[in-house]
Amino acid sequence: MRRALITGGAGFVGSTLADHLLDLGVEVAILDDFRTGRREFVVDALARGAELFEGDVLDDATLAAAMAGADVVFHLQANADVRHGLEHPRLDLRENAVSTSNVLEAMRAAGCRRIAFSSTGSVYGEPEVVPTPETAPFPVQTSLYGASKVAAEGLISAYAHGFDFAATIFRFVSLLGERYTHGHVIDFYRQLRADPTRLAVLGDGRQEKSYLYIQDCVDAMMTAVEHQGDTAGTDIYNLGTDATVVVDESVALITSHLGVDPVIEKAGGRRGWAGDSPLIHLDTTKIRSLGWRPTLTIPEAIARTLDWLDSEPAIALPAETVAS
Amino acid sequence: MRRALITGGAGFVGSTLADHLLDLGVEVAILDDFRTGRREFVVDALARGAELFEGDVLDDATLAAAMAGADVVFHLQANADVRHGLEHPRLDLRENAVSTSNVLEAMRAAGCRRIAFSSTGSVYGEPEVVPTPETAPFPVQTSLYGASKVAAEGLISAYAHGFDFAATIFRFVSLLGERYTHGHVIDFYRQLRADPTRLAVLGDGRQEKSYLYIQDCVDAMMTAVEHQGDTAGTDIYNLGTDATVVVDESVALITSHLGVDPVIEKAGGRRGWAGDSPLIHLDTTKIRSLGWRPTLTIPEAIARTLDWLDSEPAIALPAETVAS
Repeated sequence: MRRALITGGAGFVGSTLADHLLDLGVEVAILDDFRTGRREFVVDALARGAELFEGDVLDDATLAAAMAGADVVFHLQANADVRHGLEHPRLDLRENAVSTSNVLEAMRAAGCRRIAFSSTGSVYGEPEVVPTPETAPFPVQTSLYGASKVAAEGLISAYAHGFDFAATIFRFVSLLGERYTHGHVIDFYRQLRADPTRLAVLGDGRQEKSYLYIQDCVDAMMTAVEHQGDTAGTDIYNLGTDATVVVDESVALITSHLGVDPVIEKAGGRRGWAGDSPLIHLDTTKIRSLGWRPTLTIPEAIARTLDWLDSEPAIALPAETVAS
Repeated sequence: MRRALITGGAGFVGSTLADHLLDLGVEVAILDDFRTGRREFVVDALARGAELFEGDVLDDATLAAAMAGADVVFHLQANADVRHGLEHPRLDLRENAVSTSNVLEAMRAAGCRRIAFSSTGSVYGEPEVVPTPETAPFPVQTSLYGASKVAAEGLISAYAHGFDFAATIFRFVSLLGERYTHGHVIDFYRQLRADPTRLAVLGDGRQEKSYLYIQDCVDAMMTAVEHQGDTAGTDIYNLGTDATVVVDESVALITSHLGVDPVIEKAGGRRGWAGDSPLIHLDTTKIRSLGWRPTLTIPEAIARTLDWLDSEPAIALPAETVAS
């Protein structure tokens, strides 16, 4: 790996990966349109020589410029808003599947054949096998986000098969840690900083999910990508920890961290929203078979996330709260 | 079922389904752009009261007009050219996945919630389990066609989950019978009518695939759609026969029918083309559990196809051959 293009390189995963690749002496090109990526996440990387291309992967000229000279593409740019998919039903397909098609075509034009892709554990829908292995029964999609990621996975593996691409696909659980910017931990944190007396919880609080610390995630990605090398084909890895927490446990950790004792107001229902999976726990035997192990437990990752939110009020808190 | 919209209603499956629905007293709207659909296939249906809307499902105004009053949509319009997908890598995604998104949004706008969709056995890629059940291990896509159909399946099931659509998805083997217009039988037929002394065969002739007679296919579709009714959710069915033929057997049936004895020139290789699956045999236990049975064996379906090609030289033979 000489030079890597990271689409969505100013995001949570992308910017952490950029720092890691620079540590390894890899040249880094960052493509980001800063709709959800943040400039402060790439300040260090840019100071250390990463090159920034500002735009979207649907902008062919910017994409081609960003790809020049890259021998690996980490395609991380995506609409990651799984929760509100039904409010804009065309968005996931365009931003996750059509975008991926654009990246693949730009790679073909540039002669770049190694791709790593951030898919999601949401592709398993509501799986019948838990912990869910990569070879779980052909799932039925329950969210437009999951459907769009399945579409992108399919495109990538068809390119790998037809054009001899070397593809590594990651199905993540939710990630935690430094630069975390969306998900239930920040939702709860913001609510409790605004009003420590009450906390609104979607669903029944029994949703059970696995999480992974961002540095462990980046280590796992690099392990798998190096293992794939430039061998044509598709390898798919679940990335997660071999544990879960239920929302109620997560609430306890957050309230304890903040020293508050709110009334918990549960919306009820097994799912937090339509398309939410009430149980996400991935079988990570395959990535572990490459020697990778996570270094933090989920409670440790939550603690690390809360410490980071404490240190970053501009990100952690709504503007009016910061100003007050 | 009062009124059905059939997208791709002038195609092989669509026009046969239209005739069948008219037999049942269902009103029929046909949407077709006649790029691969054929006017002669819908002459009878139109004479019997079916309504024709000429255009593509990506044309919003035509789609909305065609959908007015429909309580069921059979979404069959697709790019079905699995073989040449790599020559136009954006086409399958646009014509099969983005098109499906458009149909789903038009249904939502019109308040229509029942959809039947023609997917494909190609979504299983090169399956490890044969005969392949609907719940086969999460497959890796080997063709852009399969990837685009997986994308469409995902969108439809996410709508079913999020918007209470009643969805029935069919994963077909290849179909044979009257109005068949593309596939290896017509390729071989045309070659042998042009030059009975030689026959070029893609691959090694050992590719083994299942086929289904078109009338049996339409019967199976109706059985499953009536079973689903307007119950929200997604049901997925393999449609095929519990048998296969290898290409060599198919060649023997066709040469015998034509009374020719050509030199067989095999290109070699397990696959007919990049993305071809050398073995397609679907487990049809699920559709059989609803009482459906095919009426024709594969050799009988091939014979029926050859008889039809004999009777339709304008379709069966290239223009120069017909003129001579």
